[in-house]
Amino acid sequence: MSLVVLGTVALDHVKTPSGTKKDMLGGSAAHFAMAARLFTQVHLVAVVGRDFPQRHLDFLKRKGIDLTSLKIGKGKTFRWSGEYKKTDLNTALTLTTDLGVLENYVPEITEHQKHLPNVFLANFDPDLQMKLLAHLKKPELIGLDSMNLWITHKLKSLKKLIRQVDLFVANDAEARALTGEHNLIMAAKSLCHMGPRLIVIKKGEHGVFFYSDKFMFSFPAYPVEKVLDPTGAGDTFAGGLMGYLSKARKVDEKNLRRALLYATTVASFNVQGFGMGSTAPLTIREVEERMKTLVEFMAVP
Amino acid sequence: MSLVVLGTVALDHVKTPSGTKKDMLGGSAAHFAMAARLFTQVHLVAVVGRDFPQRHLDFLKRKGIDLTSLKIGKGKTFRWSGEYKKTDLNTALTLTTDLGVLENYVPEITEHQKHLPNVFLANFDPDLQMKLLAHLKKPELIGLDSMNLWITHKLKSLKKLIRQVDLFVANDAEARALTGEHNLIMAAKSLCHMGPRLIVIKKGEHGVFFYSDKFMFSFPAYPVEKVLDPTGAGDTFAGGLMGYLSKARKVDEKNLRRALLYATTVASFNVQGFGMGSTAPLTIREVEERMKTLVEFMAVP
Repeated sequence: MSLVVLGTVALDHVKTPSGTKKDMLGGSAAHFAMAARLFTQVHLVAVVGRDFPQRHLDFLKRKGIDLTSLKIGKGKTFRWSGEYKKTDLNTALTLTTDLGVLENYVPEITEHQKHLPNVFLANFDPDLQMKLLAHLKKPELIGLDSMNLWITHKLKSLKKLIRQVDLFVANDAEARALTGEHNLIMAAKSLCHMGPRLIVIKKGEHGVFFYSDKFMFSFPAYPVEKVLDPTGAGDTFAGGLMGYLSKARKVDEKNLRRALLYATTVASFNVQGFGMGSTAPLTIREVEERMKTLVEFMAVP
Repeated sequence: MSLVVLGTVALDHVKTPSGTKKDMLGGSAAHFAMAARLFTQVHLVAVVGRDFPQRHLDFLKRKGIDLTSLKIGKGKTFRWSGEYKKTDLNTALTLTTDLGVLENYVPEITEHQKHLPNVFLANFDPDLQMKLLAHLKKPELIGLDSMNLWITHKLKSLKKLIRQVDLFVANDAEARALTGEHNLIMAAKSLCHMGPRLIVIKKGEHGVFFYSDKFMFSFPAYPVEKVLDPTGAGDTFAGGLMGYLSKARKVDEKNLRRALLYATTVASFNVQGFGMGSTAPLTIREVEERMKTLVEFMAVP
């Protein structure tokens, strides 16, 4: 089944120990879509400015991503500039953000999109995430991602939103900040009490922890020796997760476990290239090949 | 096959968010032995002072641990006092250490023990660890653990020692400090180049990563909601690992994977009680029961 994602489409300027890249296609919804398109039809809901390069639009279209609800607004495209230090490649240090067209954006979707059952609210202003929710006619699985910025500045909106979603994806620092619990199992439990029945805690190089009232599980990350650029790894992870769940249709333990193995695998490709350098060329066959290696990596004899 | 362990036997004073306990039986060799005795005969090589309570000696004996080479020296037993903060239960803050009898100790073992094939050098002064090595006649598997103290103050001795062991166990911070590599795969690779063919990196709540030239793997930790006292978790982990390998005899991939599942499981019990409160009463049946849960926790559908 096809999948709607709301989030940012950005021009990224990234500095990592491996190099510096300017004006890369980025943003939470774009990274998400680049992973989810491996599994299902993705409808991208976002805004860019008139300065947004046509080549990026053509590129997203060629990847099969539906751009009907990608608005081209007056003003400049959202720009993010960040740096990763050698000693902590898991944490992005934001250097500058230039909101541009994001400032006056209100998400709109087509009638067809309003009836789609699977929706992901990728990292974005929680007030805008809420506005998209109001459009939905028959949501069956709503996923949500956020970030420290919104936990700090829009906690009330974020908490209201969390109550209305089925699946919440957070990294370990966000889960701790939102709940005040240091132990990740306790943090996940506490997030579950806030509303969502499915909690996914991303731990970067340490893998993922899943929690629900009925079962919980954990997988290690795929071992990557050389991380080039982690930007978008979390969005790529969420794209693999929601993409597989949309394809599988049934959200049960088996499919959640498989979805998180796919998520882990696509995210491992993401960090091996700058921007979408490693995820854009990916085929599902390559993902499945690496997933086999991941499964062997964590195999119990 | 039986197993020799050299390390400390201590009286611990521990403060954690769950409480404070004084004069607990502790030390690297004692925690190691308490786990390894579940799998094999353990010979404890250590020193205590004349103040060491007879009840602790009786207790170790009742657990089937061989104390022939536990020397009772002139002076006081080694004492360690530490604290764990709520925000980082993985890291012990040492408040005081009182070396006592450790200052003039030289490890000695019996003729029988000199011929045993499996030896573990639990966390201790690397110069003393080296002295034990010199006694061994037919070592087949030598394991080594250390800590930040020795990396900082006795790096030369430690590096010389590392060259002579088969298996090196380190936590993530120690692996990074010893190699200067932040990426744990690169750190493990670098440790392997220093000598040991088998590298085990303990990541606390994030599980374990194993590396060798031929294969590598990773497992998540068993999910523990309430950590009471992590003191000795790393030693307990090493005890489960070496204990199982000694029992299994053959050090191949299958047995290493199984050994690290046992290690993960016994370490999860350790943190659920103060000192040896949770590991001392353990039976192998209880360990295997929890290991089943761990295997289900990380199962691939």
